[in-house]
Amino acid sequence: MQKAGTIKLSYVDVDGKGNVDYDHLEKLLKENERSFVSLMHANNELGTLSDLERIGDLCEQYNAIYHSDTVQTMGHFRHDLSKLKTHFMVCAAHKLHGPKGIGFLYVNHKIKIKPFIYGGAQERNMRGGTENVYGIVGLAKALEMAYADMEQHQQYIQGLKSYMIDQLKANIPGIKFNGEIDADKSLYTVLNVSFPCNDMADMMLFNLDIAGISASGGSACSSGTDIGSHVLNAIGGIGAGPSVRFSFSKYNTKDEVDYTVAKLKELCMAYA
Amino acid sequence: MQKAGTIKLSYVDVDGKGNVDYDHLEKLLKENERSFVSLMHANNELGTLSDLERIGDLCEQYNAIYHSDTVQTMGHFRHDLSKLKTHFMVCAAHKLHGPKGIGFLYVNHKIKIKPFIYGGAQERNMRGGTENVYGIVGLAKALEMAYADMEQHQQYIQGLKSYMIDQLKANIPGIKFNGEIDADKSLYTVLNVSFPCNDMADMMLFNLDIAGISASGGSACSSGTDIGSHVLNAIGGIGAGPSVRFSFSKYNTKDEVDYTVAKLKELCMAYA
Repeated sequence: MQKAGTIKLSYVDVDGKGNVDYDHLEKLLKENERSFVSLMHANNELGTLSDLERIGDLCEQYNAIYHSDTVQTMGHFRHDLSKLKTHFMVCAAHKLHGPKGIGFLYVNHKIKIKPFIYGGAQERNMRGGTENVYGIVGLAKALEMAYADMEQHQQYIQGLKSYMIDQLKANIPGIKFNGEIDADKSLYTVLNVSFPCNDMADMMLFNLDIAGISASGGSACSSGTDIGSHVLNAIGGIGAGPSVRFSFSKYNTKDEVDYTVAKLKELCMAYA
Repeated sequence: MQKAGTIKLSYVDVDGKGNVDYDHLEKLLKENERSFVSLMHANNELGTLSDLERIGDLCEQYNAIYHSDTVQTMGHFRHDLSKLKTHFMVCAAHKLHGPKGIGFLYVNHKIKIKPFIYGGAQERNMRGGTENVYGIVGLAKALEMAYADMEQHQQYIQGLKSYMIDQLKANIPGIKFNGEIDADKSLYTVLNVSFPCNDMADMMLFNLDIAGISASGGSACSSGTDIGSHVLNAIGGIGAGPSVRFSFSKYNTKDEVDYTVAKLKELCMAYA
């Protein structure tokens, strides 16, 4: 759209941990009338959280439309729509143990949108096409289950993540964490780690895979591309060693963390 | 797109049975360089078939791009892509007993397209977003099953449709059929009927529903709208009575046809 000249695009600055520079955001909002702001709630690769309320207040003050990519946090945080000033929020079911290929877009009633896909009158004329009914049912059930025990799972999963951070520090000298890792600034399901070894990230992931450990070098959306993580590039200054993203869920255990850390230690020593 | 001025839009004439006027199509192709032709293989409301080969030849002759909406016929006809000159064809799994909310677009290798949805690198960069995996698997299985016994099912279903046509003629004087009904010009799964009675189509469908008979007043895409069938409007000259679309599948039986015809006769006599 920028290339086509239909919008003016500005990137909000981020710091070395992926935090939004709120002063820069305000400066941009001051300079540009009726902006459309799109800032994700939790970064999918780093876990660094943005402040939905603070951005919402700024957007309200400067008459901007606020879209937040909440895909990582929907079903993991409680979003109180009576208080939040987001105009758009999104969900993907597979991020909360629901089925793949289904999600939703929340649109605040103050905003009028045009159809995304023209055709049939499905989804109140907003998106033509026969609905993925079993997916919709699965999404609803997954949300129901996520909200039923959210605080309990949050505490349990944060415990696993904190434990892994401690174990990695204790066992692998020189290890670095990308993005925020504090519990109040970071998504409890994601941990991004840079290893102090000379192995390639791809080879490290390959070796982890052989050991039965599923982890990721970036986002799944970039699978098959070979340009590295645009997120890690944007925050700069990550180590020369491979970076790996670990994800945690309520189905993981401390034993799995121990096994993973032991395997990582072994790999790092082999490629020291 | 026409309103935005990015394309010039022309409608190809159809006759009273929904057949494409091939002479008019050729005239339009002559007058317009490098056209994009979109003509459905079988009309979803009438069942009237277009001639994929004839249109393909015309499009080749005049250097046009040919898109055919084959949603009604995929899994019910054999489309030989080594012979057809279509550039685009589509499929929706639920039209062949597969799951809802999944389908595919076939794009001939001679055509280069741009992504429909930007974002991740999924589907060879053509459509960002995590794939509906269980839907894709279900679609593949449904196609496999459809092709395994296609000729057998085609014969059986055509038999049901022909039987229903005969029974309707014999039992309800003044009944009319919309679109083509000959086996070689019409999709064997669809029969569109106009009744010689004063009942409203909605009330008739309501009464059929109560009797356990599922039929449709138009396309499912228009459910909830109240503007009537644009298809029936386009072919003009349908009766003043209600029009109902009946669909047949390999799971239907002659007994069901008998039951339906008896119920229709009853309703027509009540509202004669």
